[in-house]
Amino acid sequence: MSRKILVPVDGSPLSRQALEHSLEEFEDATVVALHVLDPSEPGYSTPTPVDVRTEPPQGSEEWYERAHEEEESVFEEVREIAAEYDAEVTTESTTGEPSREIVDYAEENDVDHVVIGSHGRTGPTRLLLGSVAEVVVRRAPVSVTVVRDVEAL
Amino acid sequence: MSRKILVPVDGSPLSRQALEHSLEEFEDATVVALHVLDPSEPGYSTPTPVDVRTEPPQGSEEWYERAHEEEESVFEEVREIAAEYDAEVTTESTTGEPSREIVDYAEENDVDHVVIGSHGRTGPTRLLLGSVAEVVVRRAPVSVTVVRDVEAL
Repeated sequence: MSRKILVPVDGSPLSRQALEHSLEEFEDATVVALHVLDPSEPGYSTPTPVDVRTEPPQGSEEWYERAHEEEESVFEEVREIAAEYDAEVTTESTTGEPSREIVDYAEENDVDHVVIGSHGRTGPTRLLLGSVAEVVVRRAPVSVTVVRDVEAL
Repeated sequence: MSRKILVPVDGSPLSRQALEHSLEEFEDATVVALHVLDPSEPGYSTPTPVDVRTEPPQGSEEWYERAHEEEESVFEEVREIAAEYDAEVTTESTTGEPSREIVDYAEENDVDHVVIGSHGRTGPTRLLLGSVAEVVVRRAPVSVTVVRDVEAL
């Protein structure tokens, strides 16, 4: 039976690298790209810059509509990367607090390994590990690879 | 140029699994097994149970002598696992606080990836992540895989 690798994606450069890492290192695995719509954090789920002055209210119908459009562009990129590697990647979407959704997904879907970027879209900071990755490493029921952007350090 | 994978080893079941994971997932890589002698924590560097009543004083010459013997048995096991995988593994020894030594080694020796067990010899606890692995994930300059023993959960 093929192993199932979970890669949380948010359209950030490091989530792209995490997906590439998965496709390079886990050949013959089933790769699932999971995007989490986070109504409490508009910046997390949107790859384009957010203008707070024109931003629809978080969690509103309009917000979800736009978030789903953004998500579609994240998944489009996932499919492009998969095509480059001549691989198939399943896309999944869920809504909630990202680290919790990622851990829950891993628990409930027989995931064998999680590959996650050390940071989401907020990019490298003084800290080397973002909060989502940190919680996932702490709580995931399976082995986790944290992909770090060596170039950016 | 071949990638260099660093695997901290301490004779624990999870460090064995981390080494096996490295040899399975990173073919053609150079694998370095690093053991850290920690004079502040006799249990960490010794694969056999410690009897505090007969234990030589930590950091004493006698302590180091015994720690080096224990280390040799850790390295012997590393060589046995390497032989099973028909692979070569370099063994390295250093002395100090384990997480710091591991991060320093990665920084100073062009390591490309660290593979570490989620726990050391103290075994699974209520927490899913031991303190050494946690610090290594936070501070390592490169990508890190935390190997978790799924069977034990």
